[in-house]
Amino acid sequence: MTTTVRTRVAIVGAGPAGLLLAHLLAEAGIESIVLDRRSRAEIESTIRAGILEQETVRVLSESGASERVLAVGTRHDGIELRFEGEGHRIDFPSLTGRSVWLYPQHEVLKDLIAARLAAGQDLRFETEVTGVGDVETDRPWVTATTADGDAVRIDADFVVGADGSRSVVRPAVTGSSTGGYFREYPFAWFGILCEAPPSADELIYSNSAEGFALISQRSTTVQRMYFQCDPDAAPDALSDEEIWETLQARVPGTALAAGPVIQRDVLRFRSFVAHELRHGRAVLVGDAAHTVPPTGAKGMNLAVADVVLLDRALQALLLENDARLIDAFAETALRRIWKAQHFSWWMTSMLHTARDASDFDHRRQIGELRSVVESEAGQTFLAEAYTGWPHEGTPGRGSLSE
Amino acid sequence: MTTTVRTRVAIVGAGPAGLLLAHLLAEAGIESIVLDRRSRAEIESTIRAGILEQETVRVLSESGASERVLAVGTRHDGIELRFEGEGHRIDFPSLTGRSVWLYPQHEVLKDLIAARLAAGQDLRFETEVTGVGDVETDRPWVTATTADGDAVRIDADFVVGADGSRSVVRPAVTGSSTGGYFREYPFAWFGILCEAPPSADELIYSNSAEGFALISQRSTTVQRMYFQCDPDAAPDALSDEEIWETLQARVPGTALAAGPVIQRDVLRFRSFVAHELRHGRAVLVGDAAHTVPPTGAKGMNLAVADVVLLDRALQALLLENDARLIDAFAETALRRIWKAQHFSWWMTSMLHTARDASDFDHRRQIGELRSVVESEAGQTFLAEAYTGWPHEGTPGRGSLSE
Repeated sequence: MTTTVRTRVAIVGAGPAGLLLAHLLAEAGIESIVLDRRSRAEIESTIRAGILEQETVRVLSESGASERVLAVGTRHDGIELRFEGEGHRIDFPSLTGRSVWLYPQHEVLKDLIAARLAAGQDLRFETEVTGVGDVETDRPWVTATTADGDAVRIDADFVVGADGSRSVVRPAVTGSSTGGYFREYPFAWFGILCEAPPSADELIYSNSAEGFALISQRSTTVQRMYFQCDPDAAPDALSDEEIWETLQARVPGTALAAGPVIQRDVLRFRSFVAHELRHGRAVLVGDAAHTVPPTGAKGMNLAVADVVLLDRALQALLLENDARLIDAFAETALRRIWKAQHFSWWMTSMLHTARDASDFDHRRQIGELRSVVESEAGQTFLAEAYTGWPHEGTPGRGSLSE
Repeated sequence: MTTTVRTRVAIVGAGPAGLLLAHLLAEAGIESIVLDRRSRAEIESTIRAGILEQETVRVLSESGASERVLAVGTRHDGIELRFEGEGHRIDFPSLTGRSVWLYPQHEVLKDLIAARLAAGQDLRFETEVTGVGDVETDRPWVTATTADGDAVRIDADFVVGADGSRSVVRPAVTGSSTGGYFREYPFAWFGILCEAPPSADELIYSNSAEGFALISQRSTTVQRMYFQCDPDAAPDALSDEEIWETLQARVPGTALAAGPVIQRDVLRFRSFVAHELRHGRAVLVGDAAHTVPPTGAKGMNLAVADVVLLDRALQALLLENDARLIDAFAETALRRIWKAQHFSWWMTSMLHTARDASDFDHRRQIGELRSVVESEAGQTFLAEAYTGWPHEGTPGRGSLSE
């Protein structure tokens, strides 16, 4: 037996993209239902990226989606690029007038889920989508199965696939589950969470003869760090001591504060952009539409930019019957997406050591890093991308009031 | 029977690097002899690059090496980057305060040879070097054979290898004829000289689905143009008509002024940097030390920067017995060389279409080009490198008086 419910927007996926979209639509008076196959606990404990662009922070705080981001998050005014044993700081405010915030993605998710539940909105965990249809009509639908095995059908005005890189909505948009532009990289990150005080105030991106390392932070007592590893590496293959030795060798000049490793994972790098972002009354946003390697910290920020654009387009379509913005959605979103793909590729290729890299390649890479840090324009070009291009149709360049 | 002559600096190679060095040394009162295996006519008719950085022009004009460069050369205040059928101008003066000059390399050579001969200096064509020795002592020497088969030995205080990519001095510096960092590229340019009026006022660098093309100029009646071709292409494989069709397809939006093709060549791309630039009392400069792909127009400019640095170092060493600058020569020169290698690689990889490029790669490339042209910082970063970084130890950023 199938229960049928009616809403305006059916949103598949309770990640940052899906939850933020639901929040923004609700602010505009547009009802939606969010479905996710995962449990709330699972979603809230997933360790992901932690760098938010200034515009991402603005959207989260000004919309009321996260009141904690400014209070609990940490503003970072720069990063360090380290190569040949020397650090070079990129100062974001003086170069771009913007900063970034360190605020882990799962904290954003906790805020969004809490806000949504507090407002009595329809958020369904452990509900697995089984079908998406009629997206070429004005009445697309989504079918799903709850944790109890009950079938549900959601009739909507619009369907949004915000369900990550293994999106089940994607085939309804692109015609296949994999249709897209791909790139594999010969790189991966070995990531750890450890119990230790911070080793540096800001993120350190280090190109070293031994390979790339990223020293980042999480809180006063827990840190997140990464080092380039073989894509086939097993997370359990290294002892804590080997992990610290590897990390330390890649950031000469900084004595790392070591501590127990409490979580470890291997992140493989790939780039993906779906061939189509929209088909009729279905669109893809966030990781369902695109994935980037993590080096540029663009993943969640790109998802938020998609959602800001889509929110305005759905308001125009559903409140004013104006299809111009939704018709322009894919082209507008793709301009930012391909710039972000390039930036992620650039940071990755400039900082990592390919297994088959020649001495020429390594010295060219150092020439590249030197060109960037010796030029205010080079630093600014990098900082603009890192702190985030303005959202489409917003002035977006002012400082964020705190 | 061998004639032995004595000079302070033995310079092998009468290209831009060797001739300019001899000129600058003479200005400082340091005698030298320049040898080249080629005839004067051969040297003066070699078609090469034509874009001079502002600092290159300053050195040539202010030293009296070329009085024609400002009078006959054409100042270019920008280039156009074209992609997806749209042109985007990079305006050099507003971004960097600098310009570049179009003045073909063989014209520079004519000026340098004429100046040297007019001053009664020792310049020997058709003289082939057969040996270089004792570079670890204070009396290095060069042996050579003249066109008449006579042997000559030059005893000097210093030996300079300015004899191009097949340098015969190189083994005395690096220990082998090939010792260096290499990179091959899967690209080449099909270059033409044609009798036609200019098709554009400034250079057009065009990324197109069919491959790269560069529209450049030479004079009011003769033009130089290039298009990406297979590295194994034969210059005679295409008819004039096919050449014009290929070029035109790659610069949509500009109607090319066609005309008879009077010269054609295929330029294969490679990067090279010698492992060592100096050993004892011998150094390498220009193409003997490094070659770059032509996309960034860096070849001759890098040679001039080497020579400016070496001139100062030799003056200190030979006039004041101060070895500090010559001891720092290689490290200082290499910083610019590796930045130039990177810039040449960047322009090449951003603008050309690799045979095995995927759809992802092409779209990322467009994202890269868009990132550059949409950002003043991105445009400036490119323009700084194209117009040339200041020479080491000079202020170098002012405008050039004309």
